[in-house]
Amino acid sequence: MILRDTTSSDWAGIWPVVEPVVRAGETYAYARDLTSSQARDLWLERPPGRTVVLTDDGPDAAVLGTAKMGPNRPGPGAHVGTASFMVAEHARGRGVGRRLGEEVVAWHRAQGYRGIQFNAVVETNTVAVSLWRSLGFEVVGTVPGAFRLPDGSYVGLHVMHLDLT
Amino acid sequence: MILRDTTSSDWAGIWPVVEPVVRAGETYAYARDLTSSQARDLWLERPPGRTVVLTDDGPDAAVLGTAKMGPNRPGPGAHVGTASFMVAEHARGRGVGRRLGEEVVAWHRAQGYRGIQFNAVVETNTVAVSLWRSLGFEVVGTVPGAFRLPDGSYVGLHVMHLDLT
Repeated sequence: MILRDTTSSDWAGIWPVVEPVVRAGETYAYARDLTSSQARDLWLERPPGRTVVLTDDGPDAAVLGTAKMGPNRPGPGAHVGTASFMVAEHARGRGVGRRLGEEVVAWHRAQGYRGIQFNAVVETNTVAVSLWRSLGFEVVGTVPGAFRLPDGSYVGLHVMHLDLT
Repeated sequence: MILRDTTSSDWAGIWPVVEPVVRAGETYAYARDLTSSQARDLWLERPPGRTVVLTDDGPDAAVLGTAKMGPNRPGPGAHVGTASFMVAEHARGRGVGRRLGEEVVAWHRAQGYRGIQFNAVVETNTVAVSLWRSLGFEVVGTVPGAFRLPDGSYVGLHVMHLDLT
């Protein structure tokens, strides 16, 4: 697998990964009817942020997963980063999320961030919660009922944090 | 005191309240060099959000305080609101923050929100923390060191929540 920064021509390969996640409405607080253009504006970070893709080897290899990262807040909060991850449905179980997560942690460390904060991890997204825990993240707190699942039930959103100091 | 929705001509009266708070860098994770134009875009909410001002009586009365409110997240998170408040330096100690806080809670209740979340309350901002607690908010968790004070020290950011269900 190859991990690299995105270029402007990558969106056509990333959107097929992002769209099913957005439409499913189970893991991200994005509008479920988000258009490709809106999603591109959300997902492709500008410096000091960064968006990466993980692909199979080869020049036209499909995108297996993607992550974006950068400061969580401006000004007095810019020393803490944040990130978002999506894994292609066809690539689940291959360690794609872990590879992206490790890259996110390494990048923030190299850039001198003092921590990484996830603002809204859906508590029923147990694969993600377990992965972040295994990378050292802790649940700082859980906002009760802050996420509405497609079946109409309400579940909590974890705030998770990794100390890099 | 009169509380009312902002109009497009209000910014000239609001900016003198907002600017010292932004420049001080002690309570909001906004860039300290934010321009008036950038601050206006941040502060004046569009529907379904709302921005209000509290003024003394009279047609040309100065702005004593201002609050903005609306959904904290899009889509599956839009049933939880959020808000931000600023009180004019010359109006401290007159109950301006409390009046704005009560309005924020009443508005979210009337609009059918299931809760209100503050994402980043600086833990050393004890006046604000006490006020929100007195209105029923609880600290869900505290992200350690997530806010850099002007003296270079790092303090935590509280996530606070009020259940409206």
